[in-house]
Amino acid sequence: MIKATIITIGDEILIGQIVDTNSVSIAKHLNRAGITVVEKLSIGDDAPKIEQTLARAHAQSEVVIITGGLGPTKDDITKHTLARIFHSSMLEDKAVAEHVRTMLEKRGIKFNELNRSQALVPDCCTVLFNHHGTAPGMWFEDEDGGVTVSLPGVPFEMEHLMEDEVMPRLKSHFSLHANVHRTMITSGLPESMLAERIEKWEDALPDGVKLAYLPAPNVVRLRLSAYDQEDGEATRARIDELFKQLYDIIPGHIVGYEDASIQALIHDLLIERGQTLAVAESCTGGEIASRFTAMAGASAYFLCGIVAYANEAKVSILGVDAADIERYGAVSEQVARQMAEGARRLSGADYAIATTGIAGPSGGSAEKPVGTVWMAVASPTETVAVMRASGTDRGQIVNRASAYAIELLYKQLTRK
Amino acid sequence: MIKATIITIGDEILIGQIVDTNSVSIAKHLNRAGITVVEKLSIGDDAPKIEQTLARAHAQSEVVIITGGLGPTKDDITKHTLARIFHSSMLEDKAVAEHVRTMLEKRGIKFNELNRSQALVPDCCTVLFNHHGTAPGMWFEDEDGGVTVSLPGVPFEMEHLMEDEVMPRLKSHFSLHANVHRTMITSGLPESMLAERIEKWEDALPDGVKLAYLPAPNVVRLRLSAYDQEDGEATRARIDELFKQLYDIIPGHIVGYEDASIQALIHDLLIERGQTLAVAESCTGGEIASRFTAMAGASAYFLCGIVAYANEAKVSILGVDAADIERYGAVSEQVARQMAEGARRLSGADYAIATTGIAGPSGGSAEKPVGTVWMAVASPTETVAVMRASGTDRGQIVNRASAYAIELLYKQLTRK
Repeated sequence: MIKATIITIGDEILIGQIVDTNSVSIAKHLNRAGITVVEKLSIGDDAPKIEQTLARAHAQSEVVIITGGLGPTKDDITKHTLARIFHSSMLEDKAVAEHVRTMLEKRGIKFNELNRSQALVPDCCTVLFNHHGTAPGMWFEDEDGGVTVSLPGVPFEMEHLMEDEVMPRLKSHFSLHANVHRTMITSGLPESMLAERIEKWEDALPDGVKLAYLPAPNVVRLRLSAYDQEDGEATRARIDELFKQLYDIIPGHIVGYEDASIQALIHDLLIERGQTLAVAESCTGGEIASRFTAMAGASAYFLCGIVAYANEAKVSILGVDAADIERYGAVSEQVARQMAEGARRLSGADYAIATTGIAGPSGGSAEKPVGTVWMAVASPTETVAVMRASGTDRGQIVNRASAYAIELLYKQLTRK
Repeated sequence: MIKATIITIGDEILIGQIVDTNSVSIAKHLNRAGITVVEKLSIGDDAPKIEQTLARAHAQSEVVIITGGLGPTKDDITKHTLARIFHSSMLEDKAVAEHVRTMLEKRGIKFNELNRSQALVPDCCTVLFNHHGTAPGMWFEDEDGGVTVSLPGVPFEMEHLMEDEVMPRLKSHFSLHANVHRTMITSGLPESMLAERIEKWEDALPDGVKLAYLPAPNVVRLRLSAYDQEDGEATRARIDELFKQLYDIIPGHIVGYEDASIQALIHDLLIERGQTLAVAESCTGGEIASRFTAMAGASAYFLCGIVAYANEAKVSILGVDAADIERYGAVSEQVARQMAEGARRLSGADYAIATTGIAGPSGGSAEKPVGTVWMAVASPTETVAVMRASGTDRGQIVNRASAYAIELLYKQLTRK
């Protein structure tokens, strides 16, 4: 098994100022190629800590990928630390220097000493040319065949270098086997009941196939993983077979495969059926529209979304009855229903989702506390509405209400 | 200085199946209280690796926070590993057992053996009662005063336990100093030019005050950090003074403080001025509306958003001229302008943002490749429009186009 450690560098990660998504993307790349990530870690811009961590990473894994700390400024120290570790001196890479100069001049930026320093690289490394930014990637090999790769922390640049430079080299450097992960999405059984129902099946799983439970609101994902498989295709087939057995054990609770979200299942269904969707959102503020339009091909069915935040917008655009807002409140079954029906009418869509709720932190009352959300789905035959209490934190309320509303549509679409 | 290590457990993190946001939130909590996170790491559901990592974390830091692996199923092994490390046997916590039973029965779930196991805790720990879920938190102290805390991996439950149980205990257990971080947002100077301009100021920073550059599209954040300060207020004042000096060095390039995004600056401006906003989105699909409505208080100015994905919606809801869509294409200056003006007219808002572009992966042409986005801002006095090429990946195009369009509004709002 070829193992990897991913190291992300930057004080901004340790103080919680940014969310580290680089390591997620790198982990995906490595896994797909059959390299097993044994640890991911983040440390500060601190030379002794970087050195010590690289040594430990190297001792536990054949591949070490390190991102960040390659900028032109004084807080960027990764490159010099790597040079020290590999007993290497720094030299200017002519191609990189020329690229940096051209890139900056195009943007009307003067090429200065700091930019020139970006073209300095340890002389023992292979430069991974960064077409999309000024900091080059670097590839180091040591005598025992281990590989250390240093990449810039800008997600877009890191991503291109991983895809175009790092992965092809790793695949030719190592003889890799396959890591197989298959995920099944279940719905309607909480984790403990699901575990009880599938206990015998779980106990009979073959050696080397590992089961993980990934619970989320309303769904539990079951992932089967098998690492370092010589014949990946055979393992995939074996895992498909195991999943088929599950169908007989928990019929009616399996809603999809892989990382497909409920919106992805809806996406496929609507395209398959040639039907269309519109959305009318109040408290979810565009989140539901975003989730659908984030998927390539959404324009085949997604006609429009209305974020009717102000009551006037609910009335003038969606045709909600102003008297009903007055009588029942904007957060009410009546208004949710009229929003969904209004969105359907306005767009001509087959289905429409609506949400109206109190995302907080203010605006709640004893009767309708923060987190109260009414959601409705209008379909060709009927309109359904439900109320859910979706938590206390604004972001959480928006997320959960979006998930519930999308699930409500899914239920309508798959009703027998 | 009190140091901390954050450990998140779960194979799903190592294969890149989920983004670890728990450690971000924990890092924020610790930092605010003056505890310095020296390392954050993620490892798999593997007992020897957990033991070995806990030992290392303990050697380098007084506080170790570990999340995940506390569920009722077989892949959850954190609790038993902790019991082994602390030479502790497991006993049933009556209050937790009762809570789990009540919680499940309310949801119509049968209390089974697996759930009962959730009430088992190592006998040497202090139970941190989880009002929002079934897995309790656990607090361990060792002879030398070090603290290890185990928390469930469900973000919402973890968050409540950190806030209500862990932070108050840490504050009383340790004598804590302050970590001071202040961030200034600059715009219009790329990182290397900024560094050159402020070099003297940077070199003269007092000992213990560290500068970090955080570049992002169109802005560079400058963060000054001072750790473990006995008098936090005095340090804050000193850093404010240092930032004031920057004003004289780079006048006109400072757009805000702290983690304020451009949308947060607009949020404040519009509320202060009593003005309103509407949004008309095509390719950004609700992302711009989401960014504004994610902020508490957005309802004071955010009137509505229209996600006019289909051309018919652009025409029928926003009043875009169908002949212009035919003549210039949906992705054109003319359509972007008409969308912005239509949203303003429809909602009565003072300002409106519009986007129309090709998010890909298909739909591009030689003349308008994937990533081409037209954006417009309509204001009381004029409508401006610009075209940007925003990358190649769908998610990136949506994010960048949203950022550019929001920045265009900010420029209009702050024009002298």
